Amino acid sequence: MSNIENTIDRIQELIDSDTMQQLRDELNSFHEADLADIFQQLKPEERLECFVLLDEEKAADVIEYLPPQLQVEILGDIDESLASRLISKLPHDEAADVLGDMEEDETEIYLEKLPEKFSSEIRELLTYNEDTAGGIMNPQVLTVTYSTTVKDALDMIRVNAEKDSIELYYVYVIDKQEHLLGVVSLRTLLTKPNNLPISEIMDRDIVKVHVDDYQGHIADIFMKYQFDALPVVDQYNHLKGIVTWDDVQDIVEEETTDEILTSSGIVTDLGDDNDDDVLTGSLGHSIKARIPWLFITLIGEFIAVSVTNKYDTTFTALPVIAAFMPLLAGLGGNIGTQSITLMVRGMSTGQVTLSSGWKYIWRETLTGISIGAIFGLLVSLVTWGWQNNAQLGLIVGAAMALNMTIATMIGTCTPLILKKMKIDPAVASGPVIATTIDVIGLAVYLTLVTWYLISV
Amino acid sequence: MSNIENTIDRIQELIDSDTMQQLRDELNSFHEADLADIFQQLKPEERLECFVLLDEEKAADVIEYLPPQLQVEILGDIDESLASRLISKLPHDEAADVLGDMEEDETEIYLEKLPEKFSSEIRELLTYNEDTAGGIMNPQVLTVTYSTTVKDALDMIRVNAEKDSIELYYVYVIDKQEHLLGVVSLRTLLTKPNNLPISEIMDRDIVKVHVDDYQGHIADIFMKYQFDALPVVDQYNHLKGIVTWDDVQDIVEEETTDEILTSSGIVTDLGDDNDDDVLTGSLGHSIKARIPWLFITLIGEFIAVSVTNKYDTTFTALPVIAAFMPLLAGLGGNIGTQSITLMVRGMSTGQVTLSSGWKYIWRETLTGISIGAIFGLLVSLVTWGWQNNAQLGLIVGAAMALNMTIATMIGTCTPLILKKMKIDPAVASGPVIATTIDVIGLAVYLTLVTWYLISV
Repeated sequence: MSNIENTIDRIQELIDSDTMQQLRDELNSFHEADLADIFQQLKPEERLECFVLLDEEKAADVIEYLPPQLQVEILGDIDESLASRLISKLPHDEAADVLGDMEEDETEIYLEKLPEKFSSEIRELLTYNEDTAGGIMNPQVLTVTYSTTVKDALDMIRVNAEKDSIELYYVYVIDKQEHLLGVVSLRTLLTKPNNLPISEIMDRDIVKVHVDDYQGHIADIFMKYQFDALPVVDQYNHLKGIVTWDDVQDIVEEETTDEILTSSGIVTDLGDDNDDDVLTGSLGHSIKARIPWLFITLIGEFIAVSVTNKYDTTFTALPVIAAFMPLLAGLGGNIGTQSITLMVRGMSTGQVTLSSGWKYIWRETLTGISIGAIFGLLVSLVTWGWQNNAQLGLIVGAAMALNMTIATMIGTCTPLILKKMKIDPAVASGPVIATTIDVIGLAVYLTLVTWYLISV
Repeated sequence: MSNIENTIDRIQELIDSDTMQQLRDELNSFHEADLADIFQQLKPEERLECFVLLDEEKAADVIEYLPPQLQVEILGDIDESLASRLISKLPHDEAADVLGDMEEDETEIYLEKLPEKFSSEIRELLTYNEDTAGGIMNPQVLTVTYSTTVKDALDMIRVNAEKDSIELYYVYVIDKQEHLLGVVSLRTLLTKPNNLPISEIMDRDIVKVHVDDYQGHIADIFMKYQFDALPVVDQYNHLKGIVTWDDVQDIVEEETTDEILTSSGIVTDLGDDNDDDVLTGSLGHSIKARIPWLFITLIGEFIAVSVTNKYDTTFTALPVIAAFMPLLAGLGGNIGTQSITLMVRGMSTGQVTLSSGWKYIWRETLTGISIGAIFGLLVSLVTWGWQNNAQLGLIVGAAMALNMTIATMIGTCTPLILKKMKIDPAVASGPVIATTIDVIGLAVYLTLVTWYLISV
């Protein structure tokens, strides 16, 4: 699908000209991922009109690729019995996600319509927090016992390969009580003699996660070991499901968004059981997410105001002093933000650790001093030339150099200190450090100015 | 490995007590991903001492998990013939990455020592830009011809399953000239009758990427279709290799880091063929990466200074006016940054598109007006109480409300406009918008103040 805009135009044309058979054929010829993209661009009524033209298998596949709001919207708009047929075609973890996103009474209606076994498995999945392994895992897993032979395991894989929702990479070895004992990869099975028992080839040293493990932890383990799937167990080591790379991919995107929004002072977890995200949720949700750190900034900036206000006689004597304040605060803030960003990102990719922290503090300080010196000199010369006042140039330049150096050091050290105190460095970093840099920068500048005024 | 700090202590103890056999046993019992973590925490001489104790297979696996600088460091420190044996055990794409990170003459030395076929394949890989599909792909691919039967294909997979570096998910169908004709998944092969020819079950509608496609594009395709592997072809549709999810995971992490650093005004691609990243590269590299946008901020802030300087008589008459400038600039900057961050991230996850942009502009404007009203009122009251001056309170409060609303609108619209102009919104967003908001915010505030002073 080279150009989605053209495709959308083409589809809208077919809808308008009422050539239903052609529309049906064209829609069904797209890959489900492309259809999901197309549906996100269509108007709600067009979307519905197109969706009901899809073959049922295709329709279920498309549901999987759609974002949660659209899944719920479409399933709510179509015929209820069609909706429950589609839900029953989804992999268990997807079905649980979709049903979990609906209103509670709606969820119940569908659960009662679904096949007994399916719906009881979904009910169990719905008991887990959706940000934990239990809320992410697929409970359909290939299992064998200790004494199964390689041939029997391969035959079982062959039978299950028909079902798209079952992963084939690994077979898990369990006992009668479903305790996880070992794991064998499909790769290993393919290379071993047919009559060997699994117990002789299985790997007993299993990397696994717990149903209550938080999603960020799962992503870290996954990225570290680079397995294709991870088994999920409960507290008694019963095998409950598996997590695969496409689940992890969603987690990583979500965690990265959280990290980015958090460091700009947006609260991503309001803890009000409200799934809405900041961009698409209600206006009230968006305001609540953004006010807390702005309010803390407000307090910080009032401190800056009261510090600055002590120099009122300075402003009366030499008003140009006031005019330079935005310059100093702006550049201090920017270079400080660069340092914070480098450190917070470095910590989240694992490049910066507490033990290697000193190296980065030293390096960033050198960077701050160097850039501070360059910009200090530049600002001195420009100010001298512009205001025809060498001393003013010297003061502003010196304040700039000091300010940028201090801002870099604060921006580098604070995330490390927060991490040491086991506080998420992203949470408090952005807005608070920016305000601190503002206050300190202004204090440095105005102190230099006062010394100068006293000395003349 | 529950606690890496304890493990490191334990290993350092064994090194100091010179109990080599025990150290060797313990090291070889770790998973290679754990060893890579451990090695990153050890001092260089300890690292070398431990590395040479590893079995060769294990050592090659560990190399794969290490970051590039450490790969080159360790291979440079160990015996040259051991190093070339280890390199020859790596998957082709990893070997090419390692050799590509070395000095050119070193690369040549190793290439001459490696087996003829291996080294000629690596030479071809080294001709591709490392940020393109060609630079990322693994050239070892399972291929069959049109007429191969299911049974023969499965037998071939079985033989190749021995080699860890060959992916088994898909078998690609090529003609005699190695043109890519179709693809069959291992899952499909397992479910079909043994004597069917591949041509009857292969998928001809292949999602593929081009050797010169940029890595960000590959990650997008991968994430969209959620395949386990993607084939890479040249301009004549010759199959050249495959890209797998663990390659894509590295790309996504790298692209995300670039996005985050770029939006804080750090230039991530200096285009000087220098691979160093901003955090670990040379001091000069770090300074060069950070100065460009700071310099543009400097120019912007000088504009702010000259705007502000026009109000020198105001500062003389009412110096407290100057003291409130940091408050207004600080909060305007923060709420504006929140909007920029939401929009840039929304665009990079695909949630915000140009066609849905209006919806977000409207929503963000409402958010800005609401928060502006709340903070404006708050600031009015505090200022009135503190300075005992109702009119000053009114001015500062009104300026705050206006400023926050305008900042939100600028922060929301600018990324969309840049995207429309086909400029990466992250590039110009952070520092430039912050400066623009500073200048406009100060102008609004000082204009209000002047009206007030004229009116009294």
